[in-house]
Amino acid sequence: MTLKELAKELNLSFSTVSKALRDSHEISIETKNRVLAKAKALNYQVNPLASSLRKQKSKTIAVVIPEVVNDFFGPVINGIESIAQEKEYHVLIYLTHEDMQKEVAITKLLQNGRVDGIMMSLSEQTSGTAHLEALQEKGIPLVFFDRIAEQMDAPKVTTDDYNCGIKATEHLLENGCKRIAFLTIAPNLSISNKRMNGYLDALKKHNIMQDEGLILYCTGDDHKNNELIRSLFSSPKRPDGVFASVEKLAISTYAVCEELNLQIPEDLKVICFSNMQTAAFLNPSLSTITQPAYEIGREAAAILFDLVEKKGQRGRIEKRVLNSTLVERNSTKGR
Amino acid sequence: MTLKELAKELNLSFSTVSKALRDSHEISIETKNRVLAKAKALNYQVNPLASSLRKQKSKTIAVVIPEVVNDFFGPVINGIESIAQEKEYHVLIYLTHEDMQKEVAITKLLQNGRVDGIMMSLSEQTSGTAHLEALQEKGIPLVFFDRIAEQMDAPKVTTDDYNCGIKATEHLLENGCKRIAFLTIAPNLSISNKRMNGYLDALKKHNIMQDEGLILYCTGDDHKNNELIRSLFSSPKRPDGVFASVEKLAISTYAVCEELNLQIPEDLKVICFSNMQTAAFLNPSLSTITQPAYEIGREAAAILFDLVEKKGQRGRIEKRVLNSTLVERNSTKGR
Repeated sequence: MTLKELAKELNLSFSTVSKALRDSHEISIETKNRVLAKAKALNYQVNPLASSLRKQKSKTIAVVIPEVVNDFFGPVINGIESIAQEKEYHVLIYLTHEDMQKEVAITKLLQNGRVDGIMMSLSEQTSGTAHLEALQEKGIPLVFFDRIAEQMDAPKVTTDDYNCGIKATEHLLENGCKRIAFLTIAPNLSISNKRMNGYLDALKKHNIMQDEGLILYCTGDDHKNNELIRSLFSSPKRPDGVFASVEKLAISTYAVCEELNLQIPEDLKVICFSNMQTAAFLNPSLSTITQPAYEIGREAAAILFDLVEKKGQRGRIEKRVLNSTLVERNSTKGR
Repeated sequence: MTLKELAKELNLSFSTVSKALRDSHEISIETKNRVLAKAKALNYQVNPLASSLRKQKSKTIAVVIPEVVNDFFGPVINGIESIAQEKEYHVLIYLTHEDMQKEVAITKLLQNGRVDGIMMSLSEQTSGTAHLEALQEKGIPLVFFDRIAEQMDAPKVTTDDYNCGIKATEHLLENGCKRIAFLTIAPNLSISNKRMNGYLDALKKHNIMQDEGLILYCTGDDHKNNELIRSLFSSPKRPDGVFASVEKLAISTYAVCEELNLQIPEDLKVICFSNMQTAAFLNPSLSTITQPAYEIGREAAAILFDLVEKKGQRGRIEKRVLNSTLVERNSTKGR
């Protein structure tokens, strides 16, 4: 529904309808009410800022992510910016702080058309997708990366989470671990699922009985996570290997091991998904699954700009998988 | 200059001038040219998006910073967001990637009024302030934090860089260091200056001769920085202590020490300005000057919103200094 069509429906001039919607003093209250009623009936969105932006393109894209205190999203943003700068677009960064309500509020706000496209990595709480579908209904191009909404018809850029789940688990097995714990957050998210399925399938493949007690579901609260880990590590059935699906849980693991005087890798081997710059200088140096964060940002941005500039077919749903790398360091060293 | 004043100058109705500036078909070419000529003469900025934003406030503030792959700016942004969310403002993050030309381009763009206020930490290359003054001339509230423009009349939020420079240097001296190297970036920036002056004054106070060869001016290029550090550490007059003014130079120091098989703290003690989450788990754990990053963000945002909402006196220039903390760990341990 354009303003022109609305004017035609009302049998008024474009200028009169436009003024009425802007609440101009030149237009009578009667006419204003008539215009507003019709606009509402026809679901025309009355928002002068949005319409102004729509006309001239905002030349802005939004990146909606859970947090920035993180070694993954930093380089992703740099990757996105490297493409956006070529295209002379601005990048607007929104943080959900892992809170689904904030994510919903941000998507509502973005529905008004202040940006030409959106790139998104879901909060750890996100369960439904109604707020994301609403964006698509408004015709705003949307690309997911890393923490994707698996079930949605939208382009997605991820790493090979399932394979890496297998690789990390097998790496611990090869180095002599028999009881491997899996530390995860956000079981709702498809990446958590895939990493865990990789872990479970690797155990199966090697005929190792799965022990539910070795899977820890952690949260955004570092203090509580440390408690969970401490309790697991203090139990008689302590694990001899830890696979952390996110970086911060490896840091918690190091902290708890120091507290309990457990030696890594002698008492317990550790590997985790991480883009930590200091992984090589930790005590001991940390084995990681390192994601191509910068490239993920570039790839997702390239797909988004194809959609924004309508170069690609609009209906084409791309799914790109960029491989991560297992970097072996001292924290998983075998005897 | 408002549109209303422009209309009065032209002796035309507000509506006609507004339409002329929007290039409406309802207005004759003669009138349009007259309006545009007058607008130009009176320095009225013809920008429909900007004027629309000015009218309804964009409810957006910009944060212009050098980079996000950094343990300092992450928590600063979280601090800023915590205030912005209370005020229901959006935070737009721009990265200069330590490039003055990009910083200038961003400030040009922000002159059009797409944001209600700006918070800024300068790039390491920034030398002049013309681009920053241009923002102030447009009446856009501007607050500096951390890497401030010392000479400008604008609110500034920093930490006690000079005192921390003294404290870090004295801490190394107390632990037995006799030849302390100072690693810095961006000598243009006032924070670099203050940290270095703290270092120099501490040496003077303890009657230690300053050795120019122990001051390394590093850059944004990690590879080159490592070379500079390697060359210093391989020289016969090797330092026995390192004070790194930024986090990444401490990481480089650890990398070079590993290469050259130098033991920290036995051969060389290390302290640096850092908000690294893993400082306690490095090998050896790293002594740091930790900045109150989150609080710096909150404080700077609070001052900015005072200006945006014109609650404070507009001319009042605030300078806030939040103290950092020296955290002693193994990298500076004395014999």
